[in-house]
Amino acid sequence: MARFERLLITGAAGALGSVLREGLAPLATTLRLTDRADLAAAGPHEEVMPAELGDFDRIMEVVAGCDAVVHFGAAPVERPWEEILESSIKGGYNVYEAARRHGVKRIVYASSIHAVGYVRREEGADTDTPHRPDTLYGVSKCFVEDLAKMYWHKFGIESALLRINSCFPEPVDRRHLATWMSHRDLVQLVTRCLTAESIGHTVVYGISDNRERFFSNEKVRHLGYVPQDSAEVHRARVEAACAPGDPADPAVAFAGGVFCTMGHPDD
Amino acid sequence: MARFERLLITGAAGALGSVLREGLAPLATTLRLTDRADLAAAGPHEEVMPAELGDFDRIMEVVAGCDAVVHFGAAPVERPWEEILESSIKGGYNVYEAARRHGVKRIVYASSIHAVGYVRREEGADTDTPHRPDTLYGVSKCFVEDLAKMYWHKFGIESALLRINSCFPEPVDRRHLATWMSHRDLVQLVTRCLTAESIGHTVVYGISDNRERFFSNEKVRHLGYVPQDSAEVHRARVEAACAPGDPADPAVAFAGGVFCTMGHPDD
Amino acid sequence: MARFERLLITGAAGALGSVLREGLAPLATTLRLTDRADLAAAGPHEEVMPAELGDFDRIMEVVAGCDAVVHFGAAPVERPWEEILESSIKGGYNVYEAARRHGVKRIVYASSIHAVGYVRREEGADTDTPHRPDTLYGVSKCFVEDLAKMYWHKFGIESALLRINSCFPEPVDRRHLATWMSHRDLVQLVTRCLTAESIGHTVVYGISDNRERFFSNEKVRHLGYVPQDSAEVHRARVEAACAPGDPADPAVAFAGGVFCTMGHPDD
Amino acid sequence: MARFERLLITGAAGALGSVLREGLAPLATTLRLTDRADLAAAGPHEEVMPAELGDFDRIMEVVAGCDAVVHFGAAPVERPWEEILESSIKGGYNVYEAARRHGVKRIVYASSIHAVGYVRREEGADTDTPHRPDTLYGVSKCFVEDLAKMYWHKFGIESALLRINSCFPEPVDRRHLATWMSHRDLVQLVTRCLTAESIGHTVVYGISDNRERFFSNEKVRHLGYVPQDSAEVHRARVEAACAPGDPADPAVAFAGGVFCTMGHPDD
Amino acid sequence: MARFERLLITGAAGALGSVLREGLAPLATTLRLTDRADLAAAGPHEEVMPAELGDFDRIMEVVAGCDAVVHFGAAPVERPWEEILESSIKGGYNVYEAARRHGVKRIVYASSIHAVGYVRREEGADTDTPHRPDTLYGVSKCFVEDLAKMYWHKFGIESALLRINSCFPEPVDRRHLATWMSHRDLVQLVTRCLTAESIGHTVVYGISDNRERFFSNEKVRHLGYVPQDSAEVHRARVEAACAPGDPADPAVAFAGGVFCTMGHPDD
Amino acid sequence: MARFERLLITGAAGALGSVLREGLAPLATTLRLTDRADLAAAGPHEEVMPAELGDFDRIMEVVAGCDAVVHFGAAPVERPWEEILESSIKGGYNVYEAARRHGVKRIVYASSIHAVGYVRREEGADTDTPHRPDTLYGVSKCFVEDLAKMYWHKFGIESALLRINSCFPEPVDRRHLATWMSHRDLVQLVTRCLTAESIGHTVVYGISDNRERFFSNEKVRHLGYVPQDSAEVHRARVEAACAPGDPADPAVAFAGGVFCTMGHPDD
Repeated sequence: MARFERLLITGAAGALGSVLREGLAPLATTLRLTDRADLAAAGPHEEVMPAELGDFDRIMEVVAGCDAVVHFGAAPVERPWEEILESSIKGGYNVYEAARRHGVKRIVYASSIHAVGYVRREEGADTDTPHRPDTLYGVSKCFVEDLAKMYWHKFGIESALLRINSCFPEPVDRRHLATWMSHRDLVQLVTRCLTAESIGHTVVYGISDNRERFFSNEKVRHLGYVPQDSAEVHRARVEAACAPGDPADPAVAFAGGVFCTMGHPDD
Repeated sequence: MARFERLLITGAAGALGSVLREGLAPLATTLRLTDRADLAAAGPHEEVMPAELGDFDRIMEVVAGCDAVVHFGAAPVERPWEEILESSIKGGYNVYEAARRHGVKRIVYASSIHAVGYVRREEGADTDTPHRPDTLYGVSKCFVEDLAKMYWHKFGIESALLRINSCFPEPVDRRHLATWMSHRDLVQLVTRCLTAESIGHTVVYGISDNRERFFSNEKVRHLGYVPQDSAEVHRARVEAACAPGDPADPAVAFAGGVFCTMGHPDD
Repeated sequence: MARFERLLITGAAGALGSVLREGLAPLATTLRLTDRADLAAAGPHEEVMPAELGDFDRIMEVVAGCDAVVHFGAAPVERPWEEILESSIKGGYNVYEAARRHGVKRIVYASSIHAVGYVRREEGADTDTPHRPDTLYGVSKCFVEDLAKMYWHKFGIESALLRINSCFPEPVDRRHLATWMSHRDLVQLVTRCLTAESIGHTVVYGISDNRERFFSNEKVRHLGYVPQDSAEVHRARVEAACAPGDPADPAVAFAGGVFCTMGHPDD
Repeated sequence: MARFERLLITGAAGALGSVLREGLAPLATTLRLTDRADLAAAGPHEEVMPAELGDFDRIMEVVAGCDAVVHFGAAPVERPWEEILESSIKGGYNVYEAARRHGVKRIVYASSIHAVGYVRREEGADTDTPHRPDTLYGVSKCFVEDLAKMYWHKFGIESALLRINSCFPEPVDRRHLATWMSHRDLVQLVTRCLTAESIGHTVVYGISDNRERFFSNEKVRHLGYVPQDSAEVHRARVEAACAPGDPADPAVAFAGGVFCTMGHPDD
Repeated sequence: MARFERLLITGAAGALGSVLREGLAPLATTLRLTDRADLAAAGPHEEVMPAELGDFDRIMEVVAGCDAVVHFGAAPVERPWEEILESSIKGGYNVYEAARRHGVKRIVYASSIHAVGYVRREEGADTDTPHRPDTLYGVSKCFVEDLAKMYWHKFGIESALLRINSCFPEPVDRRHLATWMSHRDLVQLVTRCLTAESIGHTVVYGISDNRERFFSNEKVRHLGYVPQDSAEVHRARVEAACAPGDPADPAVAFAGGVFCTMGHPDD
Repeated sequence: MARFERLLITGAAGALGSVLREGLAPLATTLRLTDRADLAAAGPHEEVMPAELGDFDRIMEVVAGCDAVVHFGAAPVERPWEEILESSIKGGYNVYEAARRHGVKRIVYASSIHAVGYVRREEGADTDTPHRPDTLYGVSKCFVEDLAKMYWHKFGIESALLRINSCFPEPVDRRHLATWMSHRDLVQLVTRCLTAESIGHTVVYGISDNRERFFSNEKVRHLGYVPQDSAEVHRARVEAACAPGDPADPAVAFAGGVFCTMGHPDD
C-alpha cells in the first residue's frame, strides 16, 4: 500500500533519478517527476513536470501538492561555479523554501562523499564529522546540508542527507571497492529515509555492505538501513583491470578520490 | 553443569521474571525465587521465598546463601512516587546492601530504556551516554545504576545494568520494530552477564538484532551478547496494524516513546 | 532591586543555609526559610516555616507562593540509609514535585563533589562527566541531579546542580587547597544561578579560584560565575598544620577524599 | 613597521569595516577599501575602490595587488534570499576565487554567531562544534566557512573565520552581557589573525572577556587573542534598562537570540 | 599474480612467521625470510638470510631489494630488558631505518595487545586509545608504534601496527575466547595491510570474529579486514578444561591477562 | 622546611639541570646531582655523583637512598640513534628500574614538545593527545612516557612527564613567543610535580603564561601549576630581530618547529 499520496523526485532524468523513478514507485499513489532534461512520457501513476531548479516560481508549482521530496537534482560532478550556484545552491534553496510554503514535512537529499572528501582513508569519518569539502561541488553539498539543518530547527522540516559515495551499476575502479553503492541499496536507503518514523536531521553515508569502507553509519541505525550488496563480488574483475594506486597520490590517500586532485573548474 | 550453587531471581513472578525462571534454570543447582505476587509451587531445583522488596530484614533472608542475584523486581512501569520509592528505590538499596552483607559478588539488574528516554531517535546513544530519564520510573532506574556504581567502586560488587528496551513475546507497535527484545535474547543476555569472566560496572542495552535501533552496544562486546532474534520478521504484521506516527509527537521523536508524553502519575 | 518576590531557602539553619540566608537577602522582597532545626526568629523581609523535608504536605505549604527555590536541605554528610532516604531522596522529590505543582520555574540544588567522588585527582572531570558516587550520600546527590533532569525535560523546570566541593570558612586540610569554596563565592554562585537568564539543566562545580583544582567549569561559562577567593592564601598555614598525604591512600588519590575510604554507614 | 604592502578591507563602509579602517591602518603601507556604500575620500595610505561583491570582474580588480584580505562585506543581518545570495554567497565565492587567482595567501572573514545560533546557552560550543545556523544569514556564513576550508585544503589559502557575537560600541541588552565584543577587541582579533605565523583554517569566536559567555576559544590559543574589554562594566546600566527574559523563549534559550525566533524573511 | 617483487618477513622462523611464510607466498615473486633461528632450506620462490635484528649492517643487507617488510621478529613475550632492548627496540629501529635507506614504502609490524594491556575488559578500547603497556615487552611495542608514526610523518613510510591478541592454532584458556586470532585470519589481515591502497599509520587489533571481544576495529574498516574464524566453536572444550577466573584477579580484569600480574623479569 | 631527605637530579650539569640545582635546593635536605659532564664541586647540602645514564650499576648507586628523582639527563636535542639509545632509552629504563628497586615513589621527567611535534599549530593538543613524535629524540621521549605509565600501573611509581616546550633564559625566535618557558616557571612546575599530593601518571606541557600557545594544560589543574612569566614582554625585541615565517614551511606549521624539517641524523 502506498505510503505517500504524491511523492516528488527532482533530477528524475539523471542516472540515480531514473533508478529511483522505478524503485520508489511502490511508495506513492502518484510519483511526480521533474528535471531539466527529457523525462520521456509519464507512466501509470506518474506525473512529469519539467523544470529548472533555479526557477523558484516553477519549483513552487512542482512542489505543490506533494507529501515529500526526494531531491536528487543538481550538477552531479564538479562544474563551473555559475552552474553549481544555479542548480545546486539556488536549486537547493528553492526546493526547501517551496517545501516550507507548501507544508512538506520531509526531504531526502542527495548529498555526497565530496562534502567530506578531504578525509584521509585511514582517518575515516562518521556521521558527526564536520565538513571537509573537496570541490565547489562538495561545498554546495555542505550548503544544502546546513540549509536543511536550519529548516529543521526553525521550521520542523525533517531531512535525510545522503552522502552518496559511488553509486553506479558496478564498481569500476579500486576505490569503488570501498565506496560503491548498488542501485538496489540506494533504493532501500531512500525508502528507509522516507518511511522511518522520525529522522530529524540525519546524515547517512550511501554505501553498500563493502568489505572495505571509509565511513561509519554506526550512529544512524535508527534508519534501519541494512545494505544487501557488496563491492566484494566485483573485486577480481576490478583488480585485474586497474593497477594499484600510489598512496602518496591525494586521489588515493583521500576519500574524495580524483576530486581531491582537480584544480578549480575554470583552470 | 550448573555455574551457581544458588541463584536468586527477584520479581520472579513478573512477565520477565517468569521467562528467567525457566531460562536460567540450567545455570544453578538451586534457583531461589522471590516476589510479592504468587510464585506458585517451587519446582525441582527451585526455592520460593515470598518477600516485599521494601522489607530489608526479609530481603536479608532472601539473599542469604546466594551466589549471585538477578534483580528484576520493582514496579515495571510508571507508578505513583510512593510505589516507585518503595519497590524500586528502597528495594534496590535493600538488594545491594543485603548482597554486600552476604558476600554476593555479582548482580544483574533490570534497568530500562527509560533511564535515557529523552534521547532523540536520530541522536542515539551508547553505553556511556549520561542519564536522561523520562519518568519517575526512569529516575529510579538511574538511581540503581548509580548505586551499583558505588557498590562496585567501594565494595567490589560487579553489576550489569540492562537497559531493557521492549521485552515482549512479540513487537506490538512500530516503535517496537527498533526496541523489541525477544525472551530468548533476554535469557541469553542475562546468562552472559552472569557468566562473563569480568564485568565491573557494565551498562548494556537490552535489544534484539533489529534492523532499526536507537542504541549501540558496540562498547560492551566483552559480554559476548549476540542477539539471535529480530523484530524484522514481525514488520509486515505490525505495519499493517499500526498507522505511522507523527515525528513531531514526542512519543515518536524520543526513544522513550509514550513515557515522554506522560504527565506526572498523580495528575 | 529585588529580583524575586519570595525566594525559598531549604536547610536554612545549616552551615551553608545560614550563609545564604544572609547572602541572598538582596535578591528577594521576602526570603522564606525552612529547616527542621531551629531557625531563630524571622528578621525583616524573612518568613520562617519549620518543616521536615520528608513531609510532602508540609513542603507543599512551604513552597507555595515562592518564585524560586534554593534547595540546600538534607543530610550534609554520609548518614545511615534511612536518613539519606528521608531527607535527601524523599526530600528532593518533595521539593521538585511541590515546585511543579506551584509553578516554580527554577531550583538551585546543593549537589556535591561526592556525586563524582571516585574520580582520580589527576584524571579530573568536567560538567559532562558521568556520575561516580562515593557514598550513599553521593548516590542521593546523583538521584536529585537525575530527578532535576527529568523535571527539566518533561516539565520545563530549570535547575542548577551545584557540586559543592568543600565550603567552609577556611580550608582546613591539604585537600581543601584544591577543593575549597569560600562563603563569598558560594553566595555569588547561587546568585548567578538564580539570575542567569537561561540555565536549563546545568551542573557546575562549587569551588573558589584555587591554584590547584580537580574539576573544570569551562563548559558552564554561561553562568558568569567568576570566583573571587582562593585557597592559596591559606596554603602556608594548612601545609604547616597537616602532614602530606600518601598518594596510595584512596582518601588522597580520589577527589572524594575520606568519603572514598569510609565503609558502609552501618558498619 | 607595516606588515603588509597592501591590505584589502571589504565592507569598509560598514559599522565594523569603519572600525577596521582605522584600527588596521598601522598594519599596511596601503589600505585598500571597498564597499558598495559611500566610503568618503581616501585618507593618507588609503585607496578607495567601490564595488559590488557580486560582480566577479570588479572583485578581481579590487583584490589585485593585495597581500591579504579582511572580508567583512555582505548583508550584516537576516535579509531576503536574493540579497543573501548576491552579497554573501556569490560575494564570498568571488573574494576567495579572486584571492586564489591573485596569489593572496590569507583571508580573515566576518562569520557570525548565527552559524551556530541554535546552540543552547547552557550547552555551549567550542570551535569544533558543527554548524547549527539560525537564519539564511547564518547559512551563508556556514557556506563561506566551508568554502574557506576547501580553499585551504586544495589551494593552501589560510583563513580565520571569526564567529563574531555582538560587536557594538556598547552592550545594549542582557544577552549582550555574554555576547558583546568591543571594537578594540575586534581590532586586536583581526590583527592577530593577520599576523599569527600559521593559522591554516581557524574558527574563532569574536567575544570580549565577558564574565558570561556561551562559547570557548580554548582550542585557538595559537592566535594569541587576549581580549581586553568586558561587558561586565556595562552590567548595571543594561540590567536597569532591560527586563529579564523568559528562559522558555527561544530568543533567550538559544545563543542566536532573536534570530532564532525570526520566521523566513519573506513572511 | 604476485603483488610484490620481493617481500621480506622477519622472525620468519617463529610461530607466526612460519604461518606467514606459507600464507603470504602468493603475494610475492620472491619471499625473503630472515630470523636468528634456523629457517631450514629455502623453498621455491624463497630466499633465506639469517640475521640478528640488532645488527644494523646485516639488516641493511636483508632489507636491500625488498618492496615491503612484514616485521614479526623480536622477543615474543616478556623477557629481560637487555633482550627486549636488543631484539625489539634496536631491531625495530634497524628495520625502519634500513627500510628508509632502501626506499621501502610500507611495513606491517607485529605489535601486541600488551601495548594496551592495562585496559580493563569492560572499559574496552579502540584504535585511538592511548598506550597502556603492561610489561617491558608491551613498552617495546609502543616504541615501535611511535617510531612508525615518526617515519610516516617525516619520511612517508606507511605502517600497519597489528595489536595481535592471542594468535594460536586454537584457544587454550577462557580469556582466549575473547582474544583468539586464527592463523587464517592473521594471514588475511597481513595480506590486507600489504595490499590496501592507502594505510598511512594504521593501528588494528588482531582478533578473529569472536563473540566476546575487548577491542573495536570499527575505525579501521578501510583495511577491509573481515575475520572468518571465531573462538566460539572452541567454547565448550575450553570451558570444560578451564575453571572460571576471579574477576578480582588483575589477570582476569585486564585485557593483558597474566602479563598484568607478572613482576619485573629480573625479579 | 625541606620536603625530601635526598632528592636526585640527573642531567644536573645541563642547561636546565643547572637551573634546577639552584631552584630545587629548598626542597631537600640533600640534593644529589649526577651527570656525565663536570658538575663542579658540591655545594652545601649537595652530593655530586658523576655517572653515565647508560650504566645500570652506576645508576643503581646514584639512585640509592633518594626519595624522589628529577630525571633531566639525556641527549637534549636530535642526535644519532646510538646516542639517543644510550642516554635516553637505556638511561630512561635504568632510572626507572633503579627507582623501583630502591623504593622511590615519584619521578619527574623532562619529556618534550617533540613527543607531539607533528601537531599543527592551529590543531593544538591537550594532555590526552596521542604521541606524534617528530624525531628520534621525540620517539625516545614517547618511550619514557610509556615506560612511566607501565611503572605506574604495575609498580605504583608516580610520574610527571613534562613536555617542555622551549625553556631558555629568553625567547629567541617568533615560535618561542608561543613555546617559551622561563626558568622560574620551570622551577615552579617541577616543584609542584614533586609536592602535589597525588599525581599518578600526569602529562603536562612546560610553557609559561604566553599569549600565544599551542597546548592546553586545562586537564592538569590538579598540579596547581600557575606560570608567572610570559613571552609577551619579549615580543617587540623578537619580532624586530626575526622575519615572519612562511606558514607553508613545516617548521612554522607544526608545533615541533625545525625538528619537523630535519632529516635523519645520519643524513
